[in-house]
Amino acid sequence: MKLLRFGPVGAEKPGLLDSTGTIRDLSAVIGDIAGDSLGDEALGQIRELDHATLPEVGGNPRIGACVGNVGKFICIGLNYADHAAESGMSLPEEPVVFFKATSSIIGPNDTVEIPRGSVKTDWEVELGVVIGKTAKYVSEQDALEYVAGYCVVNDLSERDFQLHRSGQWVKGKSADTFGPIGPWLVTRDEIPDPQNLPMYLDVNGRRFQEGSTNTMHFGVATIVSHLSQFMSLQPGDIVSTGTPPGVGMGQKPEVYLRPGDRMELGIQGLGLQRQDVVAG
Amino acid sequence: MKLLRFGPVGAEKPGLLDSTGTIRDLSAVIGDIAGDSLGDEALGQIRELDHATLPEVGGNPRIGACVGNVGKFICIGLNYADHAAESGMSLPEEPVVFFKATSSIIGPNDTVEIPRGSVKTDWEVELGVVIGKTAKYVSEQDALEYVAGYCVVNDLSERDFQLHRSGQWVKGKSADTFGPIGPWLVTRDEIPDPQNLPMYLDVNGRRFQEGSTNTMHFGVATIVSHLSQFMSLQPGDIVSTGTPPGVGMGQKPEVYLRPGDRMELGIQGLGLQRQDVVAG
Repeated sequence: MKLLRFGPVGAEKPGLLDSTGTIRDLSAVIGDIAGDSLGDEALGQIRELDHATLPEVGGNPRIGACVGNVGKFICIGLNYADHAAESGMSLPEEPVVFFKATSSIIGPNDTVEIPRGSVKTDWEVELGVVIGKTAKYVSEQDALEYVAGYCVVNDLSERDFQLHRSGQWVKGKSADTFGPIGPWLVTRDEIPDPQNLPMYLDVNGRRFQEGSTNTMHFGVATIVSHLSQFMSLQPGDIVSTGTPPGVGMGQKPEVYLRPGDRMELGIQGLGLQRQDVVAG
Repeated sequence: MKLLRFGPVGAEKPGLLDSTGTIRDLSAVIGDIAGDSLGDEALGQIRELDHATLPEVGGNPRIGACVGNVGKFICIGLNYADHAAESGMSLPEEPVVFFKATSSIIGPNDTVEIPRGSVKTDWEVELGVVIGKTAKYVSEQDALEYVAGYCVVNDLSERDFQLHRSGQWVKGKSADTFGPIGPWLVTRDEIPDPQNLPMYLDVNGRRFQEGSTNTMHFGVATIVSHLSQFMSLQPGDIVSTGTPPGVGMGQKPEVYLRPGDRMELGIQGLGLQRQDVVAG
């Protein structure tokens, strides 16, 4: 299933994209694509509905982030060997973990703001993992059972704020609009192998990132298990699993986003995002 | 005003501590001590009620975290010169910022779990700042207008996870139960000078931390303004402003929490916390 949220910012409704590509309204079935609605049982009930009988959503509504009320927005750093190299950092012995502010989350096609004072706003296409049930001290073997599904994430990053503003990375990862998520939460039954998904990111029509989750250093199961040793993962938490090579910081000379730029990115089976860039 | 949340975990009700020390039920007035209830107008309406007419809460209910549905739990590192020294780190040129997982939040007197595999679970008494309205690019001069009030925070920390598990601090700051908050959100009108609050923390009756917010390196207004340059602060976000000297890591030899230990901590005017420690 492809679940989504549509409507104005802050008033998104739950929906699904049916097999014909039509958006159907799930408002009468669940309150939101969030929290306890992401468990296997709740998702199973939606799956068993006759989707053709759900109200069709007309027009061309705004698409919101595919998960509402996200509790934690967790990211894995330096998780592709070539990206670690282009960042001038070594491949870590265990996952590097940092948080993005949940207030950075926007819809997949919303406008991205360059924060005031920024000169190095950069892009990162990433596979996002949406947690479906509480995970605490789970094994790698069981880890994927705690995953509701997958989505596209653009982990926008201000490199100067991230690396040169007193040590921790969070200052460069948390600006408003730095977390486009979606368009869809694709349930894990549709993604039998999350470690074999081609992905790309273009800026102004030029291909900068091209890769596949098959070159991830730590895979999804390892990451979920590892995180669950340090914190409990809750339904609706999002884990973004790192980016392949081709970020702006890795170009020679470096390339960063400017007002008027357009990013387009996608992951096979998970849909596409497109963001226009403005000054904040 | 002293606002609080009482009742079982996950089902806390909003309340206030009146001038006689009686807990009064605010359920009929507001949904929760959270989000938009923290704005000046909403708090003003509660202030103007005749508190003696609000239902009295009998018995001795559990006290929950004093803010519900926290969006961001932001911490400032190394913000007291003596604590930076005892940590073997230098005083930063601008605030060091990191996040704790919001899933670490518990009530002020709930049990603290030592995570599995931990050998260095440590304490940190801190002044918590509760945001009352959205703050983005605010000046130091205006910053305190965005503060709803203050509370006690114990920023529990696993030092090995924090410092030796791949770079960022979040792994050592985010375990379940690592964020006791409360007992009260004390509105800012009752704390005319947040930079002059004595604070302490005892373990098993021995005084380990004793300090005052008057030795903070970056004060509350500076911190709120600074953070708002990197992310928007939202109503209900909590900013914990760093700890004075006396953490376990700073002892010679080092001292860490063990099952059976009891922490007691407090800040003048903001109330006391007491946590018993168990194995996770």
